[in-house]
Order: sequence, then structure tokens, then C-alpha cells
Amino acid sequence: MPTPLTTVFVSEVLATGVLMLLGTGVVANVTLARTKGEADDGGYPLVVFGWGIAVFVAVFVGFASGAHLNPAITFGLLASGAQEYADGVPVTMVATVVYLAAEVLGAFLGAAVAWLVYRDHFAATRRPQGVLGVFATEPAIRNLPRNLVTEIVATFVLVYVVLVFGNTPHELGPLPVALLVVGIGAGLGGPTGYAINPARDLGPRVAHAVLPIPRKGGSDWGYAWVPIVGPLLGAGVAGLASRAVGQGVG
Amino acid sequence: MPTPLTTVFVSEVLATGVLMLLGTGVVANVTLARTKGEADDGGYPLVVFGWGIAVFVAVFVGFASGAHLNPAITFGLLASGAQEYADGVPVTMVATVVYLAAEVLGAFLGAAVAWLVYRDHFAATRRPQGVLGVFATEPAIRNLPRNLVTEIVATFVLVYVVLVFGNTPHELGPLPVALLVVGIGAGLGGPTGYAINPARDLGPRVAHAVLPIPRKGGSDWGYAWVPIVGPLLGAGVAGLASRAVGQGVG
Amino acid sequence: MPTPLTTVFVSEVLATGVLMLLGTGVVANVTLARTKGEADDGGYPLVVFGWGIAVFVAVFVGFASGAHLNPAITFGLLASGAQEYADGVPVTMVATVVYLAAEVLGAFLGAAVAWLVYRDHFAATRRPQGVLGVFATEPAIRNLPRNLVTEIVATFVLVYVVLVFGNTPHELGPLPVALLVVGIGAGLGGPTGYAINPARDLGPRVAHAVLPIPRKGGSDWGYAWVPIVGPLLGAGVAGLASRAVGQGVG
Amino acid sequence: MPTPLTTVFVSEVLATGVLMLLGTGVVANVTLARTKGEADDGGYPLVVFGWGIAVFVAVFVGFASGAHLNPAITFGLLASGAQEYADGVPVTMVATVVYLAAEVLGAFLGAAVAWLVYRDHFAATRRPQGVLGVFATEPAIRNLPRNLVTEIVATFVLVYVVLVFGNTPHELGPLPVALLVVGIGAGLGGPTGYAINPARDLGPRVAHAVLPIPRKGGSDWGYAWVPIVGPLLGAGVAGLASRAVGQGVG
Repeated sequence: MPTPLTTVFVSEVLATGVLMLLGTGVVANVTLARTKGEADDGGYPLVVFGWGIAVFVAVFVGFASGAHLNPAITFGLLASGAQEYADGVPVTMVATVVYLAAEVLGAFLGAAVAWLVYRDHFAATRRPQGVLGVFATEPAIRNLPRNLVTEIVATFVLVYVVLVFGNTPHELGPLPVALLVVGIGAGLGGPTGYAINPARDLGPRVAHAVLPIPRKGGSDWGYAWVPIVGPLLGAGVAGLASRAVGQGVG
Repeated sequence: MPTPLTTVFVSEVLATGVLMLLGTGVVANVTLARTKGEADDGGYPLVVFGWGIAVFVAVFVGFASGAHLNPAITFGLLASGAQEYADGVPVTMVATVVYLAAEVLGAFLGAAVAWLVYRDHFAATRRPQGVLGVFATEPAIRNLPRNLVTEIVATFVLVYVVLVFGNTPHELGPLPVALLVVGIGAGLGGPTGYAINPARDLGPRVAHAVLPIPRKGGSDWGYAWVPIVGPLLGAGVAGLASRAVGQGVG
Repeated sequence: MPTPLTTVFVSEVLATGVLMLLGTGVVANVTLARTKGEADDGGYPLVVFGWGIAVFVAVFVGFASGAHLNPAITFGLLASGAQEYADGVPVTMVATVVYLAAEVLGAFLGAAVAWLVYRDHFAATRRPQGVLGVFATEPAIRNLPRNLVTEIVATFVLVYVVLVFGNTPHELGPLPVALLVVGIGAGLGGPTGYAINPARDLGPRVAHAVLPIPRKGGSDWGYAWVPIVGPLLGAGVAGLASRAVGQGVG
Repeated sequence: MPTPLTTVFVSEVLATGVLMLLGTGVVANVTLARTKGEADDGGYPLVVFGWGIAVFVAVFVGFASGAHLNPAITFGLLASGAQEYADGVPVTMVATVVYLAAEVLGAFLGAAVAWLVYRDHFAATRRPQGVLGVFATEPAIRNLPRNLVTEIVATFVLVYVVLVFGNTPHELGPLPVALLVVGIGAGLGGPTGYAINPARDLGPRVAHAVLPIPRKGGSDWGYAWVPIVGPLLGAGVAGLASRAVGQGVG
């Protein structure tokens, strides 16, 4: 029995929303002023594990739609020649649009709720850069071509290995993908903060632009294309590579 | 064969007791003076993982009664339209009262034993605020309506996702709920210290009020309603939402 | 087919040896001078996770003998009324002696090998207290009756929950016991460094006494009875409690 | 149906490449200048968990060839008397050479890609020692015979326990080996940075020598034999010991 696309839409909005609520929340906790988790040193490990666990939780929430959570996963499945986006969801143009729209909308909503949760701490934070950093990724050293390479490589690893997981029997549920995201954050997140997901960056960046946050500064739209184009390129290459080594899911 | 309510009561007291012993213990270890885990920086991650593991362990201890450990879980199941609180425990008024009483009593006892374990370190700690913080939650920025919003959102995520776990086949035992609690602590614990459980806050706050701790200061009863009302509201909404998206356990 | 007691002996020596090598190793890494892991802050979390993982690994190594690793586990099983110490190993006086001897010998050997691994770092460490702390536990605030209470409570939790694990179906292998040890270290390790295992403390304390370590200071035999008596008392109570709540393994 | 050796080669190159990309990446993130993960304190735990997760991910990537990732594993299997290197891959001279070549080549390539990802951060790093440390291991206290002992012991534990895992039924997939590597890093990595894998050290050291990194300093070839000889000796002893205690995989 095919899964209705309205179910897919609701499932992906909720799952990506929870992902972004917990994920942007941990960045807020570590970087905003006067929180319980405010850290001078040692904040990055908590961020890395927090995002990994956010993925773990979100995969359960989005079970009905295969929990893409990420346009790079959607594109990677497409490029791999997969027949289905999830059990009962055939790969079609309409389904692709539903996934992408739900992912970006969910990411926007999740970040907006995180802002509600941390509202007084946003108000207490003096650095506009710190405020933007809760929502969107920023390069540590700004050099757009090299930042792009970093996002391509990191997303290639994400999507290629997710396709491998889909073809390898195991009994660990969503633990492998959560650990993979921790590993990518730890290993490849240093230069750009590992967007590895266009929705994860774009949705919250829009939220930053439209929410009434005091002293928020600009939303850095000049960088916004990097965490969209890089992940989609990395995902496309990963899908093709997966097909080439005979592990494509199609 | 129905589970007797005395079994439910003993199971929930023991399980919530172990939860609170390990959970308030890790806060004591990180914040009290002269412990092995005393930390200037980096204490929050240990607290977050310590509470998650405390939940993991407590779920095993409370296996016979479904290990609610938390009035928000009991209320969330009620609101979701569930027929049973656990295998062999039908949802009734009496059962609800048994769960709630056992959870609060267990939380009180667990915190009291943690005080025994750390008694010399309580005596060595100069700040009354630090002493209270081992027992009960305190907001980082006091603003009761916004603190309430934070507790509502965090508990909504807890209860909604726990209901999802109950409807999703997996082989990870209590690992998902433990990771969920870690994720909530990391992502949503920054403003209020994530009570997300009325018993977790009320039981130890009573313990703080009645135990003979030197220089302990007041028990901040003015805040005590927030970590009761917020979690119950969040849990109620989560139960209804779970039912609405067709994932209610009933 | 019964397991020969020579197999039990070899299995427990190897498993307890690996436990202590990895466990005392992580303390050495964090506390001795000029190691990669030398830490001013933040060392306690690594110690806590390192010991938990050491238990995880040791349970695999000691699979043939049920991986007691700890006289408190052996005594707790005895007190619980268990019929077998492991599959094919009936509870007898001789078997009890074999377990205890193997546990203490393995702990001694594991600590001795850790000393070989970190030999130059022992030589580079100026504080005798730091050297002893790699081998044996020391109370943070010396108060023997209260230190004893702490060890009793922490070991009660260990043994009671291990007996619960043995009676609860799950598919997580030794992960629960490893997380339990992490949780006890985080939550209850603050006052005494959580020996929770007479062999873990006695074997390495003997190693400290006999190994030719420069500037090593005394072995603090005045404290040595606490991490023996406390764990055995806690284990006995846990075994009886487990039997009382109908979860004894017998 | 036997697995073709070209499949083994591709599988090991990809898997060891991902291992080294994520593993050297986390060292880069923690130690190079101006990254998101740059740490004064607390970097070692992230490195330890990052390498463990890198192994976890790489085992999935190299599923088809048994994911040796490491000449010490290949030699350990040989010494243990195993009949197969993986399902469908008999132990032969040619297969051994294919594994070793693929492991070293994959390690070289993974480190080279990590350099691409962190290129601006290598350029921003002033200390040549820090640059080499991303690629190859360095002893904390230089004393080659004792550094050799450390690598022998650490690799013995790795290979002996991996052989135990292969003979113990569990449902945790590659989680045990990942935790084992975390445990070895935490417990035995203090003196030498735990190469425990000749390819892990040699491949990236060659990459360091040939890549056009500014101010990179020498590649310390005088130490390079230690992380080759030590792991192979430790692995050989582990294979024989495994056979002796009746747990050889043959």
C-alpha cells in the first residue's frame, strides 16, 4: 500500500523540525550568554554529540517517510538510482518536491521554536555573530571555494555511507547514522561547521532573517549558497559512486 | 495476568529512586566542592550524559511497571488514549494515583540517598545556591512565563518521542529514551536545567527542605510550580498530538 | 557440559586483566605527567567513559566464565541464591575461591602491565599521590565511615542492577553493564572514586607496593579495607534485595 | 562464491580511506589553528571518540572484505590460524598482499583528502610539530624501546579482543570494535598516540612527506618504524594467544 504524500509531508516536517529544534538548541546552549551549557572551552564536543542525537531522535519521528531530513539524502537516493524514497514512496518528481519543501519548512519551524526556548538568552548575547551562528553555519576561515570543497567532501561521506547502511544488514536502528553524523562533525566540521544539509542551513537562515531578534545583525546571504550547492554536489557524486561500486539501492 | 498495583508501586519507587540517585548524584559530583568530578568548565556535558544513563538504568529497574519514572509520561499516556500504562496494567484512576505517588516518593528517596553519599561535600560547599541546585532545577534567567514555555516545549519533545518509540519496532531496549534525554538536556536544557518531570523536581525539593543540610538556604518554592505545570502541559499536548498523527498507543 | 574451573580461572584472569589495564590506563593517561591525555580540567569524564568501556571489553574477554570481574558480583550472585555463577559453572565453595583468586590476580597483572605502558610517565610525575591514584582509589575527603557508606551504596546499585539485567531480556550484549558503570562513576564516584570492586582496588594496591616505581610514596594501607568491605556489604544487601523483590536469579 | 580480490582491494581502499579521513580529520579539527574544534583543553576525548566512530563507519564501508583496515588485523588473523580473511576470501599469500597494499594506499588517500578539507587551517598553523601530528603519531616522551612496548601492548589488546569478538555471538554490529578502539585510545594512547595500525601511520606519513604543505618540517622517519614493528609484533602475539586459549578463528 503506497504511503500518501501528505503523510510524507507531515512526517518530514515533524522530523526535520525536531532535528533542528534539538540541533540549533545545542548550539544555543553552548554559545549564547548565561545558559546552563555556556562554555569557554569544550563546547564543540557537546555540539557534535548533540547534533548526532538529534538525528537519532528525528529518524524515529520521521519513520513513515524514511526520515530523509535533508535534501542531500533525497538527491543522493535519486542519483543512486533508487526506486523508492521510503517503503511505499516511489521516486517521482512530485515526491521529490514534497520532500524538499517539507525539509526546508521543518528546518525553519524547528529553529523558530528553538528561538522561543532560548529567547532571553538571545537577548542577553552581545555578539551578533554568536546569534547568527545558532541558526546558520559560518566558515571558520572565509574562502568560499575551499569552504565549498569541505562541504562537498563531508556530504559525500554522509550520503555514501548512508547508502551503504541501507544495504548492510544490522540491528542498530538509527544508531549508525547518528554516529556517522557525530563522526563527520568531529572529523570534517572544523572548517565550515558541517552544514551537510541545505535545509539545515537555509531554513534557519530564513528564520534568522524574519524573527524579531534584538541586535541580530545580517543573515550573511553571501555565504548561503555554499551550504546548499556543496551538499547537493557531494550527494550527487555519492549517489553515482554508490551505484558504481554496486551498492546502489536501485 | 494483570500486574498487581503493589508491584507497580514498588517498581516505580525503586526505578525513580535509582534515576534520582544517579541523576542528582552527577550534579553533586560536578558542582559540589572537593569531589572527584568538580569542574570549572566542561561539567554540563557530564551532567547531560549522566542523566541519560540514569534513565537507561532506571528503565531496566522499573521493567515490571513500564518504567514511567515521570508523571509527564503517565499523563502523556493518559492523554494519548492508551489502554494500558504497561503490559498488564490497565489505565484507571487508581493506577494513575499509584504511579504519581510512587514517582514522587521514589524521587524523594533517591535524592535523600544521594545526600548521604555526598554528605561531606555538601558540608564543604559554601554557596547555598549550589546546594539547592543538586536537588531542584533553577532557571538560568528567571522569567517564569518564558521558563514555563521552555519546560512545555522540552517535555512535549520527551513525551511525543517516547510515544513514537512505543510504536516503532527496534532492538535497542532503553537506549533510545536515554539518548533522547541526553539530546533534550543538550539542546533544550540551557534555560531551565530541563526538569521535564514534575517528580524529578518536587521530590528532591522536599528533600532539600526537610534534610538537615548546613547553610542550605531556602528551597525556592516560588519557582516550584513551573517544573510541575510546564511538564504536565507539554505532556498533555504531546499525548493529543500523538493521537492526532495516528501514532497514539490506544 | 560443565565448564572446567581451570577455564573459569583463565577467563577471569584475562578479563579482569584487560579491565584493569584499560581502566588504570585511562587514569594514568589523564593524571600522569606529559601524556597525550594529560588534563587540567575535563579529565573526569574521560576516566568515567574509559572505565565503562573497559568493562564492556572485559565482558567479551571473560565470556566463558560469565565475566564476573569483581568479587562483589561473585558475592552478589551468592547472596541472591543463584544456582550458577555462569552457564555450566555451579555455585560451590571451590568455584567461589577460584573466582576471587582470579579476579585479584588479574587486577594485579593488568595494573602491572599498565605500569609498563606508562613507565616513563610515572617517572616524570612529581606527586606521589598522583602515582598511587593510578593504582588504587583514594577518598576525596577522608572520613572512613562516610567513605564506607558511599562504597556500600554505589556497589549496591551496581550489583542490584546487574542482577536485574540478568533477568530482563534485551539485545544489547554488555552495553547495559558498561553504561551502568559509567552512570555510577558519574553519579556516585565523586567522594571515593568508586572502587565498587575489591579486586579493582586491592590488586593494583599490591602492584603499587611491589613495583619499583621511583618516588612512589606509601600505598595507604589504612584506607585499603574500605574498598573491600564496602563493596562486599553493598553486594550482599543487593543480592538479598534482589531475592526479596522476586528478581533473584536462582 | 569467493569474493574477487579486486573487490577486496576496492573495499579496503575505500574503508581505510574513510577511516583515515575521519580520523586524521578529528586530529586536525582539535589541533590546527582557527578550526571550530580548536581546543586548549579537552581535545583528547574528542579525538578518542572521533577515531572510534571512524572505525565504526569504516567497518560498514568495508563490509565486503571484512573491513580489516589495518595490517595488524590481517597479520593477527594469519597468526591465529584463520582459514578466511572474510566470508569468501581464503587466506593466501596474494590475498595478504592485496589487503596490505589496499590498507596503506587507503590510509594515504584518506589523509590527503583530510588535508584538502583543512588546507587553510594547515596554512594558519605555526607549529610544524602540530602539522605532522595530524598525519602521523609521535611519542609524548621519546624513548623508542619503551614506545615500542606501548604499541605492542596496545595492539595486542586490539587484535586479541577483535578475535574474541569474532567468536562471540552479539547483535551490536561494529559497535564493539568501535568502543574497543575508544577504550584503547583512552587507556593506552597516552604515551604514543596509539598507532596500533602500521597503515594508519605510514600512509599519512608519506602523505605528509609528499604534499605541498607550507612550513611542514620533517616527517620524522626516525620514529616511523616503531608504529610498524610494534603493531605487527603485538598482532602476531595476539593471534598465537588467541589460538592458545582455544579462541582462534581457524
